[in-house]
Amino acid sequence: MSAALAGTLRLCQYHWRLLHQHTVPTACLSGSGQISEEVKKLLSLKSQLGIEPKPSKAKVKGDSDKAKENKKQSGEDGPKKFVLKTPKGTRDFAPEQMAIREGVFNKIIACFKRHGAVTIDTPVFELKETLTGKYGEDSKLIYDLADQGGELLSLRYDLTVPFARYLAMHKITNIKRYHIAKVYRRDNPAMNRGRFREFYQCDFDIAGQYDPMLPDTECIKIVVEILSSLDIGDFLVKVNHRKLLDGVFAACGVPDHKFRPICSAVDKLDKTPWAEVRKEMVEEKGLDPVAADKIWEYVQLSGGTELLDKLLQDENLTSQKKAVEGMEDIKLLLQYCEAYGITDRVSFTLSLARGLDYYTGVIYEAVFTGAQPALASSSEEEGSVGVGSIAGGGRYDGLVGMFDSKGRKVPCVGISLGIERLFSIMEAKVQESEQKFRTTETQVYVIAAQKGMVEERLKLCRTLWDADIKTEQSYKKNTKMLTEFQYCEQTGIPVAIIIGQSEIEAGIVKLKVMSSREEREVKRCDMLEEIRKVLASEDNVKSKPSISS
Amino acid sequence: MSAALAGTLRLCQYHWRLLHQHTVPTACLSGSGQISEEVKKLLSLKSQLGIEPKPSKAKVKGDSDKAKENKKQSGEDGPKKFVLKTPKGTRDFAPEQMAIREGVFNKIIACFKRHGAVTIDTPVFELKETLTGKYGEDSKLIYDLADQGGELLSLRYDLTVPFARYLAMHKITNIKRYHIAKVYRRDNPAMNRGRFREFYQCDFDIAGQYDPMLPDTECIKIVVEILSSLDIGDFLVKVNHRKLLDGVFAACGVPDHKFRPICSAVDKLDKTPWAEVRKEMVEEKGLDPVAADKIWEYVQLSGGTELLDKLLQDENLTSQKKAVEGMEDIKLLLQYCEAYGITDRVSFTLSLARGLDYYTGVIYEAVFTGAQPALASSSEEEGSVGVGSIAGGGRYDGLVGMFDSKGRKVPCVGISLGIERLFSIMEAKVQESEQKFRTTETQVYVIAAQKGMVEERLKLCRTLWDADIKTEQSYKKNTKMLTEFQYCEQTGIPVAIIIGQSEIEAGIVKLKVMSSREEREVKRCDMLEEIRKVLASEDNVKSKPSISS
Repeated sequence: MSAALAGTLRLCQYHWRLLHQHTVPTACLSGSGQISEEVKKLLSLKSQLGIEPKPSKAKVKGDSDKAKENKKQSGEDGPKKFVLKTPKGTRDFAPEQMAIREGVFNKIIACFKRHGAVTIDTPVFELKETLTGKYGEDSKLIYDLADQGGELLSLRYDLTVPFARYLAMHKITNIKRYHIAKVYRRDNPAMNRGRFREFYQCDFDIAGQYDPMLPDTECIKIVVEILSSLDIGDFLVKVNHRKLLDGVFAACGVPDHKFRPICSAVDKLDKTPWAEVRKEMVEEKGLDPVAADKIWEYVQLSGGTELLDKLLQDENLTSQKKAVEGMEDIKLLLQYCEAYGITDRVSFTLSLARGLDYYTGVIYEAVFTGAQPALASSSEEEGSVGVGSIAGGGRYDGLVGMFDSKGRKVPCVGISLGIERLFSIMEAKVQESEQKFRTTETQVYVIAAQKGMVEERLKLCRTLWDADIKTEQSYKKNTKMLTEFQYCEQTGIPVAIIIGQSEIEAGIVKLKVMSSREEREVKRCDMLEEIRKVLASEDNVKSKPSISS
Repeated sequence: MSAALAGTLRLCQYHWRLLHQHTVPTACLSGSGQISEEVKKLLSLKSQLGIEPKPSKAKVKGDSDKAKENKKQSGEDGPKKFVLKTPKGTRDFAPEQMAIREGVFNKIIACFKRHGAVTIDTPVFELKETLTGKYGEDSKLIYDLADQGGELLSLRYDLTVPFARYLAMHKITNIKRYHIAKVYRRDNPAMNRGRFREFYQCDFDIAGQYDPMLPDTECIKIVVEILSSLDIGDFLVKVNHRKLLDGVFAACGVPDHKFRPICSAVDKLDKTPWAEVRKEMVEEKGLDPVAADKIWEYVQLSGGTELLDKLLQDENLTSQKKAVEGMEDIKLLLQYCEAYGITDRVSFTLSLARGLDYYTGVIYEAVFTGAQPALASSSEEEGSVGVGSIAGGGRYDGLVGMFDSKGRKVPCVGISLGIERLFSIMEAKVQESEQKFRTTETQVYVIAAQKGMVEERLKLCRTLWDADIKTEQSYKKNTKMLTEFQYCEQTGIPVAIIIGQSEIEAGIVKLKVMSSREEREVKRCDMLEEIRKVLASEDNVKSKPSISS
């Protein structure tokens, strides 16, 4: 065989290996999903030329067992044996979890509505180019859709970039919106143990040109209201300012081009001791150790207006224009926080850095203080905030302009809640508490005491549904009273209505209050009223899930 | 060049063309996203061997401009110019649409809860193998995720298959659940004009071994309740039975292996005249015209119990065991519908066939009757039901068993609402109506009458938020009263609270009722109570969106 041919075939083999390692590309498959004739020809040619692998083995050979597994997965391999699982990093929500989730969302949405926010929704995927170039190193975590001959698409990575695209696309200059939806990140579990790949984000943002710090402070107010209403323990909202950080770095002698890398290092101070962060700055990022130590003088500081006033006396800092702009913003923010009555919940913290490049002004992060709330036994770390962190955000004035063809800017400020962590905490609370947790809101259970009464039971259910009473019945024609009562107790249904032949004839029903076991006769014409009275007085077993509503 | 080499290179060229037609597969790219060295070598070899295309052209050559566009899209092509659009077949939901959507969901969920259903959620994507082989010819419409080295995934195509996977995976034998979520189908717009590719489905299913027709009838009852509560005009629920259809076909002389194709043909009778359907049966599907005409005798029939009783006298039919089983089920169903008071809304319709293979018993479809409701000007056809159709479903006893490793069956029955169509109809209603449609629920707007009073305004907002009153204010420090009042009118805020220096000093506020323009002074200590009184009496401008709640 000539060198050229061998070389060519090695390349063919390479392509072949590629084809097999990751399944035959869709384009190679015929309409019925079988391997195309051309590819079969190649197999045959390789076989004729005596090139491994032989056709029969070739179908399953690969650099790993992946080809085999992928073939099985794509159903080409004969009778299917199903792997019953959700994809890595995702999970189902069972009814108990959904009830908890609903309770958390209701509280959060009530707060957003209390502040006059509207809501929007965007598609789960965007054009790939919309997301490209927005997430820096994290871009490799984006889920792409397969190229199936149409537009190239990717699953959304957050809700902020879709928001910016939405504003630019619909030419919106002013909006106060919340958006609660799932986002997708291909986190590597070896590196980030327990992270979800599909998880909820809960964003609140105010877009528009306004007077300084008014929208910025309302975001903090909203976070404080939400976290207080969820009753998850003590928390604090750390605030800082991108311009102040840049000013501090300049004042400490950090060269301009090292601002971002040094900022990333400072960002680790919530999890890593100064000694390690200093080492990273000096050894990995090439910072003058004198500068690093000067930075440390600043970033260990936190407080309130008294700290701010002190810094405003620091000539080293005030000689930096950006630092002054940042501090003036913070000063105003703290004043407004005082008017909002949230000063105790806010801490001006110079070590707060936040990872994302697109922040241009104030930045915040809400964290737990005191005891770490217990997480549910099934929980995993929320995907976008660090340990102890519950929410994060800030001002980002340049993002929408990146989307606008004329570069028109729409200033934005907002906050993103780490809702998976909140779910987890609420689940743990429910697990710990002794209270019965309901997954339905059923108020009445209808029981036929004798056989052959199913149609009377259906009619009674209809009467109750028409009166908007939440009612269930068995899907068996004939039932055992004890089993039915047990069902009521297990699911927390407070009232049972029992009918038998004699009750039908007498125009009455038996009303049983499950909590007291009390049974009494009620006339049909009084039934609805009696039921409503009992339900109103039933404190112990609510008609809603017993998550603090 | 030898024939072998030429042949090999032709194959290489084929693979090369494949590579370029649909962008270089991810596996061929190095970490930085550039074309790999090996592929460059192939380019070079082709060039040396004088095989088109030359390397510089090769990067953009392709069977279409797609490669070029894809490169641009993936950001490899220099400075990015953004295309501001959502992916084909998807759209954003603006605040007005979200408010309508919320109203529709609230009514639907209220009905599900009234019947004691729980809810679950599943991931947006499943393992590809989970979805494979479930959708027949429609499988080509499934969105795949790119192979990025992990599991092969696909976006869910409906909520029924994930439900079956959920039941099998968690070993659940009894559940009554609703699931409202988006599903994904790569519909070809040339074939199916105006179909969405991302759209909501709203499923209600009862899984478990029960007595016949009790859960089956409750599904119909629920659909009737929902459609009545949404007030969208006259509708009907057609019911039929897979076994009866099979029995009819057998009685008419259809060979067993033609049941499915003939069933598909019958399914078209709602949109296509009999003459065309008959032609398809006889000419395309090879059915004996005598059999076709016999089928027509049956499938034009519809009615209630009187039709059923007539059919039970038809010896041709009653000689078919399956037909008898089907008719007995329908008889029971109609009895139960009578008990539920929904007989007028149900029509036993022998032409109802339904596309999906997995139905094993009763099948239903809810359709508009009388005038087609107008669709919103921005609407598109809902993705899963035909023209005029609003909901569909039936019994499917074999699906969960396909997932269970031991083939354990869990009988299921359920219904899926065509919710996009319902949104569309509600949007049209809002467009036609003269009523103001609100996108926020704000109750009070706080205005500072003079400059320099921003902090007093913040404090007042805080007081109102603490009292759970939905309150907004401007994000300007100083405002023009007229502009503020205009904002209240546009957004439907019913009450304004105005403060000025003198009011602060006197311990009062001015309360303005926007609808009457009436302004009066109110003491601070009475403010909350006065506001609540006004809100309670404000009938014209509700604090909720004016979609009938």
